Amino acid sequence: MEKIILGVDPGTRVMGYGLISTKGNSASLILMDVLDMRKIDSYELRIKYIFDSMIRLIDGYHPDYLAIEAPFYGKNVQSMLKLGRAQGVAIAAALSRQIPFCEYEPRRIKQSITGNGSSSKEQVAAMLGRLLNFSDMPNYLDATDALAVAYCHFLQKDIPEVVEVGKPRKSKGKSWQAFLSENPDRVK
Amino acid sequence: MEKIILGVDPGTRVMGYGLISTKGNSASLILMDVLDMRKIDSYELRIKYIFDSMIRLIDGYHPDYLAIEAPFYGKNVQSMLKLGRAQGVAIAAALSRQIPFCEYEPRRIKQSITGNGSSSKEQVAAMLGRLLNFSDMPNYLDATDALAVAYCHFLQKDIPEVVEVGKPRKSKGKSWQAFLSENPDRVK
Repeated sequence: MEKIILGVDPGTRVMGYGLISTKGNSASLILMDVLDMRKIDSYELRIKYIFDSMIRLIDGYHPDYLAIEAPFYGKNVQSMLKLGRAQGVAIAAALSRQIPFCEYEPRRIKQSITGNGSSSKEQVAAMLGRLLNFSDMPNYLDATDALAVAYCHFLQKDIPEVVEVGKPRKSKGKSWQAFLSENPDRVK
Repeated sequence: MEKIILGVDPGTRVMGYGLISTKGNSASLILMDVLDMRKIDSYELRIKYIFDSMIRLIDGYHPDYLAIEAPFYGKNVQSMLKLGRAQGVAIAAALSRQIPFCEYEPRRIKQSITGNGSSSKEQVAAMLGRLLNFSDMPNYLDATDALAVAYCHFLQKDIPEVVEVGKPRKSKGKSWQAFLSENPDRVK
């Protein structure tokens, strides 16, 4: 059964996103791009732009999962607060549409794509190009970083069929709670 | 015209909230309480609980504004990431219902309630009790902290009549963009 995964690399200046379609063991690229918020002066409007853009992506492509890159260590408290907000807004946009989210640390994402948790962004992008058959690299590596987290989620075993967040979308399948308890390594 | 303000003191362990109804120069307490997430083991479920609870509050009381307490300095990057996420989720819940948000730093909130930016939480709570006619103090000062940010927002001049976030709710009034440009000191 086809599953669509939305990958997001959060940020309040540039936010990358990538969508892949998966079926069984195969995955294909739908699109990848960035939200560029550097020209938006007001912080409030940036936050709103992230939320609205996420909703537009979700309503346009109906992803089954949101996978976000979630660094847990940063330079300073200011940047981590901003990063946390961007993450929170992206997650909430998914929750508002009953879409579950998974988060993956950068090291784990790289490891799953290239086999090496210390790979450069360029190496990750190049490997994704081979895996998903694209050669034109995007202007921003935030886009391939987002694609990488989507692909990392695809590579996990046992992606649950259904998630009950608020209203269940289907009557059969596992609940999110069941998913969480069966996949303790997938959540933080 | 009556305006309802939802104040939130974000946190991923305990989140305070308070609702006041304002009309002209008078304000009255609707309710205040906390979301206690300490018994929710999964971080994902805590985030979801915050989002769902915010939506329930918003749909139940139809606030015109969300005012959040927004500390910009914290102990460490970990706690700031978590705080940022909680803030982001609360803000996004408001945005999903076309409700604008304002953020106020703790010092400014205290200053506006007690006249002293260094007041203790207990002093703020006691003053709010006098201003809003309640004597039973809640179990958690997170609730009065949230009420304080709602009251702080009430005390600002020129609360805009209408905010156009996504769909405008009314045809007359100022846009959010206009509000932001006219109130540079109200936003960060």
